Amino acid sequence: MSIVVQKYGGTSVGDANRIRNVARRVITAKQSGSDVVVVVSAMGDTTDDLIKLARQISDKPSAREMDVLLSTGEMVSSTLLAMALENMGHKAISLSGAQAGIRTDATFGHALILSIDPGRVVQEIKNGNIVIVAGFQGVTKDDDTTTLGRGGSDTTAVALAASLGASVCERYTDVEGIFTADPRVVPRASKLKEISYDEMLELATYGSKVMHPRAVEMGQIYNVPILVASSFNDYPGTLIHGGLMEIRNKVTAITQDMDVAKITVVGVPDTPGIAASIFEPLAKAGISVDTIVQNASIQNITDLSFTVTKGDADKALRIVGPIAENVGARECVADTKLAKVSIIGSGMQNTPGYASTMFSTLFASGINIQLITTSEIRITVIIADDKANEASVALHKAFELEK
Amino acid sequence: MSIVVQKYGGTSVGDANRIRNVARRVITAKQSGSDVVVVVSAMGDTTDDLIKLARQISDKPSAREMDVLLSTGEMVSSTLLAMALENMGHKAISLSGAQAGIRTDATFGHALILSIDPGRVVQEIKNGNIVIVAGFQGVTKDDDTTTLGRGGSDTTAVALAASLGASVCERYTDVEGIFTADPRVVPRASKLKEISYDEMLELATYGSKVMHPRAVEMGQIYNVPILVASSFNDYPGTLIHGGLMEIRNKVTAITQDMDVAKITVVGVPDTPGIAASIFEPLAKAGISVDTIVQNASIQNITDLSFTVTKGDADKALRIVGPIAENVGARECVADTKLAKVSIIGSGMQNTPGYASTMFSTLFASGINIQLITTSEIRITVIIADDKANEASVALHKAFELEK
Repeated sequence: MSIVVQKYGGTSVGDANRIRNVARRVITAKQSGSDVVVVVSAMGDTTDDLIKLARQISDKPSAREMDVLLSTGEMVSSTLLAMALENMGHKAISLSGAQAGIRTDATFGHALILSIDPGRVVQEIKNGNIVIVAGFQGVTKDDDTTTLGRGGSDTTAVALAASLGASVCERYTDVEGIFTADPRVVPRASKLKEISYDEMLELATYGSKVMHPRAVEMGQIYNVPILVASSFNDYPGTLIHGGLMEIRNKVTAITQDMDVAKITVVGVPDTPGIAASIFEPLAKAGISVDTIVQNASIQNITDLSFTVTKGDADKALRIVGPIAENVGARECVADTKLAKVSIIGSGMQNTPGYASTMFSTLFASGINIQLITTSEIRITVIIADDKANEASVALHKAFELEK
Repeated sequence: MSIVVQKYGGTSVGDANRIRNVARRVITAKQSGSDVVVVVSAMGDTTDDLIKLARQISDKPSAREMDVLLSTGEMVSSTLLAMALENMGHKAISLSGAQAGIRTDATFGHALILSIDPGRVVQEIKNGNIVIVAGFQGVTKDDDTTTLGRGGSDTTAVALAASLGASVCERYTDVEGIFTADPRVVPRASKLKEISYDEMLELATYGSKVMHPRAVEMGQIYNVPILVASSFNDYPGTLIHGGLMEIRNKVTAITQDMDVAKITVVGVPDTPGIAASIFEPLAKAGISVDTIVQNASIQNITDLSFTVTKGDADKALRIVGPIAENVGARECVADTKLAKVSIIGSGMQNTPGYASTMFSTLFASGINIQLITTSEIRITVIIADDKANEASVALHKAFELEK
């Protein structure tokens, strides 16, 4: 019998009624003929509440203890879902990450899954149980509880689906699927029936908050199709999968990221080692640097720009300022009112014309482009953040993504 | 270095401030030169809240799932205490029951400890850690979480103390120690410096709510001295231990239990098998029968009385009524307004006169005795519950227990 892994997010299991609703959906899946393994997040605000509790005790709780604390949230929701299923007459059992065989490294707070031993899960399926696994957690070789960090429960679900050879990983939240653009920004955005792993990775990395790239990446590596759908209705969702034989739209979706600041080191002598001397201290300070652009140098003098989150801009400037002065750069400036807008689509690959349509559309709207970066299936422009919504709407229309 | 096991109850870790207070007490113990292992209960009302949550989902949640759910309460409090200790500059680590090597049978909800493998605890002590163990929980050989039921965290603490060869198990709650009587009933009751395991077992079984007999029994078997004291002040508590070479008071304490109902089967033919025919159905219905008294039979007719909790009286009567009729008994009556008052003391052993002092004291107060039962170190009378307080006060005075 085929196995389906379903994952339900925190709002989907936010209270007793919603847990019962999830139980009914799980039963429907079971009755349609599959073995069902369910992964759950912690109920609603549980994780935030636990973090607040820890903060009352210590302003810097150890990562190991924090992980034990946070892992209880998913244990509570998984056991409540098992109770709900039993109450509706179905055999069910909850398993912690450790019991489900999810072995991780020991980087508490954002552990990486090393392997999954699905023995217990398989045995419980054979026993006729619907198996509920606490998401977001695993266990080290020393038997210590870890949490997986951002995107953790999704990653648990996809990893379990891979190790069980499941036919699909269905991921339910309060979001109906992947749209051609954020419907709050572009009212005429439409839901995609399917999207490739590559496109979804670009979307997730370049602003879409629907799904963390980590789980998508694992889905791609192990070729696990991921259905993104809502637990609050029965509308069809979006299937993230591999081989899309026919691509109807060359551009699949528009995404934007409002949290962008740009640091520019102006007039840098273009000598080897300059980039390293700037970016090493930033990495050591834990600042994630995103896009990096270096202009062609004129008379061995160049400008170096990079983007960080708005919250990191001041800190980055304080670190880079003295270095810039040291290497003889003219000045170091920050612009903290920026956004990224990207067009994404496998169909763009090796096909000219997309960039020029994008740029001319923005030009026609009077939007100035500050930086451009591209991948094989993505073109990103960095523009003023108060123009981002307008840019998305215009591009959505230009690339014929409207309903 | 000697090991001290400290156990803190739910009110002692009820909020962040109280957890910090407990951390300070633990540090004091550590600084006085011992290795410290701490066992904690769940914070305040956590366990009740989790039970309420389960009830919202299912009116009869499975015991296995219930145990996973409830076990999270002690995990939260143990990890918060570890954080508090770390925040005060001390190395600390929290361990679940499973990690602390507490193996139990699989009777979920009231599991019995089979063995303790203290390897991890010993290792963490060697690593210089104060070890915090989540109370009330263990793990089966199949790696499933269990809870130990009533008196569970105390039992965890005493069992750990036994397996670690600790010098003492200190058990801190909001109660200052063991008193000669309940101070709310007998204002002149005084705190005992020490009490024997046997006496404490009788006290706990016959009404004192200070400590569940289970942990006392384990302390006795493994000869672990148990200090009962308050976590809210530094007054000396009461030491429960074995060989009391000198006993100053022959009677150590008075205790009362208000939750007593009596069922009497009147005019039973005194033939073999009658008692079994009555008590077997009660046991099967889960009714715990306490004192049983059968009068001497006259012309092969006897009266059979037994006590149950007030809540079980109706059910017991419904079960026993038809049986009584069947065996030709005259009638079956219940009295639900009773209490037990007991005097307890190892000094009473083989010493006459205690019973007569007790009975004459009650007679002088105009209190009628309905049933009498005794052990080697206890005499219990069953009387009207509205006379219980008066009886306790009179007996406390008669046996010279006043301050």
